[in-house]
Amino acid sequence: MKELEERILRDGVVKMEGVLKVPTFLNHQMDVELIDKMGAEWARRFAGKPVNKILTIEASGIGIAALAARHFGNCPVVFAKKAKSINLTGDQYCTKVQSFTHGKVFDVIVEKDLLSPDDHLLIIDDFMAMGAAMHGLLEIVEQSGATVEGIGIAIEKGFQPGGDSLRRLGYQLESLAIVEELDAANGKVVFREQPGAAGEA
Amino acid sequence: MKELEERILRDGVVKMEGVLKVPTFLNHQMDVELIDKMGAEWARRFAGKPVNKILTIEASGIGIAALAARHFGNCPVVFAKKAKSINLTGDQYCTKVQSFTHGKVFDVIVEKDLLSPDDHLLIIDDFMAMGAAMHGLLEIVEQSGATVEGIGIAIEKGFQPGGDSLRRLGYQLESLAIVEELDAANGKVVFREQPGAAGEA
Repeated sequence: MKELEERILRDGVVKMEGVLKVPTFLNHQMDVELIDKMGAEWARRFAGKPVNKILTIEASGIGIAALAARHFGNCPVVFAKKAKSINLTGDQYCTKVQSFTHGKVFDVIVEKDLLSPDDHLLIIDDFMAMGAAMHGLLEIVEQSGATVEGIGIAIEKGFQPGGDSLRRLGYQLESLAIVEELDAANGKVVFREQPGAAGEA
Repeated sequence: MKELEERILRDGVVKMEGVLKVPTFLNHQMDVELIDKMGAEWARRFAGKPVNKILTIEASGIGIAALAARHFGNCPVVFAKKAKSINLTGDQYCTKVQSFTHGKVFDVIVEKDLLSPDDHLLIIDDFMAMGAAMHGLLEIVEQSGATVEGIGIAIEKGFQPGGDSLRRLGYQLESLAIVEELDAANGKVVFREQPGAAGEA
């Protein structure tokens, strides 16, 4: 999505070790107008899919998913919680996720009555790198019996394996910007060409 | 706001000790259509205020603030982060908040370049009880020199002092539902009459 790529080039900050910071428009401050357009673009790419609910994970995915939901018939948004499974009552789906960013394991939890075999989900998140959080969400979806209709990511790190390994598993994964190279020395960002994105607004 | 009150009566669950759970439409699953209407209601109540940015706090405030922003000219949304101040670089506003729900102290952080004396803020959150998180946000706003134009809360616990103490301090605090009584024994919820809400859609 050209507008997102241009915004990353303008306002993103490349840190060492493949870290891209986008706090001014995506995951600390949100540019509501841009994110609304991102929702419209996902609706275009997932046109025809019978999405009835969006699933995301706290915290940065929530606002993006909420704005995207307007483009999917105002469907409900469920956000998985990062919490200690120590309080589990048996009424929750739960899985463990290894965070590479924070170097620790955390629990991801969704209450059981919020996902069912009748649900057709679009999963949305802000970033995809190793794909650890996404695999946790997919594990929870599998526990629930719901169907994954697609995965929408704002920014994918194409030089890390998460996105392409999910594509190989057969998921329709639509990342609005795929970063192939991050050069901290000169702040350079290179994007993957996306032929499938032709026709975007 | 009648529609929110009715939804609380229908789908809210009263737990012991003054706890009201609303996971099916507000803070685990989000009813996007309802929350969009809540945004419109805040826009009505804060009409004429020169709001140029919405401030909230992760996680449950984010989706509500993002949807509300559409009714305030698609203004940007900043969400304060709950994080360890151990990583502070001097580029962040930070304060400590005592969580009564979780019985611990956490740090609330906002990067300095996201708030400035030019900002006129609407602060939004899902719940108000003791007001601890809100006082943390107000402390950060004070550090930044920005102006608070108003505070929008989805559900206020009127039997706890947070909301009314902020009103006494002079803030325009608009809670869309104010719960005066929660009776766990019979699941009863009683709302405060809000004369100022007259004329709502």
